[in-house]
Amino acid sequence: MKVLIVYAHEEPHSFNAALKNTAIKTLEAAGHSVIVSDLYRMKFKAVADGEDFLERRDKHYLKRQLEEKAAAELGTLSHDILTEQKKLRDCDLLILQFPLWWFSMPAILKGWVDRVMAMGFAYGGGQWYDTGGMKGRKAMVSVTTGGPDFMYSPLGRNGDMDKILFPIQHGILYFCGFEVLPPFVAYSPAHASPEQRDAMLKNYGKRLATLETLQPIAFHPTHHFDERMQLKPEFQS
Amino acid sequence: MKVLIVYAHEEPHSFNAALKNTAIKTLEAAGHSVIVSDLYRMKFKAVADGEDFLERRDKHYLKRQLEEKAAAELGTLSHDILTEQKKLRDCDLLILQFPLWWFSMPAILKGWVDRVMAMGFAYGGGQWYDTGGMKGRKAMVSVTTGGPDFMYSPLGRNGDMDKILFPIQHGILYFCGFEVLPPFVAYSPAHASPEQRDAMLKNYGKRLATLETLQPIAFHPTHHFDERMQLKPEFQS
Repeated sequence: MKVLIVYAHEEPHSFNAALKNTAIKTLEAAGHSVIVSDLYRMKFKAVADGEDFLERRDKHYLKRQLEEKAAAELGTLSHDILTEQKKLRDCDLLILQFPLWWFSMPAILKGWVDRVMAMGFAYGGGQWYDTGGMKGRKAMVSVTTGGPDFMYSPLGRNGDMDKILFPIQHGILYFCGFEVLPPFVAYSPAHASPEQRDAMLKNYGKRLATLETLQPIAFHPTHHFDERMQLKPEFQS
Repeated sequence: MKVLIVYAHEEPHSFNAALKNTAIKTLEAAGHSVIVSDLYRMKFKAVADGEDFLERRDKHYLKRQLEEKAAAELGTLSHDILTEQKKLRDCDLLILQFPLWWFSMPAILKGWVDRVMAMGFAYGGGQWYDTGGMKGRKAMVSVTTGGPDFMYSPLGRNGDMDKILFPIQHGILYFCGFEVLPPFVAYSPAHASPEQRDAMLKNYGKRLATLETLQPIAFHPTHHFDERMQLKPEFQS
């Protein structure tokens, strides 16, 4: 497999860095090839704006999706976007490695999504969810949290982790056509002992060894919805 | 009331701009004062990094929350963060005005949250949720979507809007202590007629007229949870 890790942490001695490094080591040892987009190191431009388009379809009124669609066709998206899109096109598995900040991605990673997952590339023209532009590829979220696991249980103070990750796993990854593997969550490494941190890294290594046989999350494909885009009764549970 | 609108759209002729302008006009006409943080116009720095701290507690290892806590005490957060924090401290109501991009905020607004809602300011030291640093203030999300309303119904293709907004409304706004007013959602203005767009703006104006009496979303306060931070049986529904 060709694996792309998009990594969003500034500190090279962080636990996020250790997870990223564990992934590189484990996956390469298993014969996979790994590419890393280290967003902080790349000083990746986080803010989606008019400068993302080398030519503007409409110079007077910025309608982002239409500019994206035109630029994707003409090859006039900015160079850093095209570079990331090529990495995505070439990969079999995408891993997003980030600390959960405010129950979501750090802005630099959200900006990578906002800019790289452009209309006409990742979706559009009827291609979305199970027919999205990234169809045939897998994706997995690997996150660290501040709080302990019980805070993220279905009845926990912060709310269920599946619910917290829904906009990312369903709204970004599945929307773009990825099969989404279950997330790997390292809970509260900042408050863990060195032994506990080692155990988390070992668990991550074990998880990575199962990637090729792991069942993706069972999100509803398009044919489960009626013409008004409502879930059909036979698929409601 | 003193109202702070944090606004995240680049295009001054967008529907987001029209909603922002409607809010300014309506709220000022009702005798409130309004301040706008126009993030694109301010070229607000979206990426949280070591440069956010004028002095570093630990120059060799960046542990963001500890740096935030120390810098909040010492007043050594970067100037742009302090400016936004002052606006927040002075406001009675915060409105986040943004287009729903990838079922979440544009990166520039996520970066505003990542950087401005610092530990030691918005939360920390046992202050969170109903005792968060922004306690006594209200907040409201005002978003536009690409898709029509039925896509965001509980059984709709994109998932329930409440579920999509949970990380923002519960995980950011309520976490920081705001009372969260029900969101205003303008569905698919890009595909609406001029008359429909006018009607949406009128609806927003009507909503804004009810702000002071509107019931906040009934999130669970801390005393609904047991010592293991699990929702007590009597509050489960």
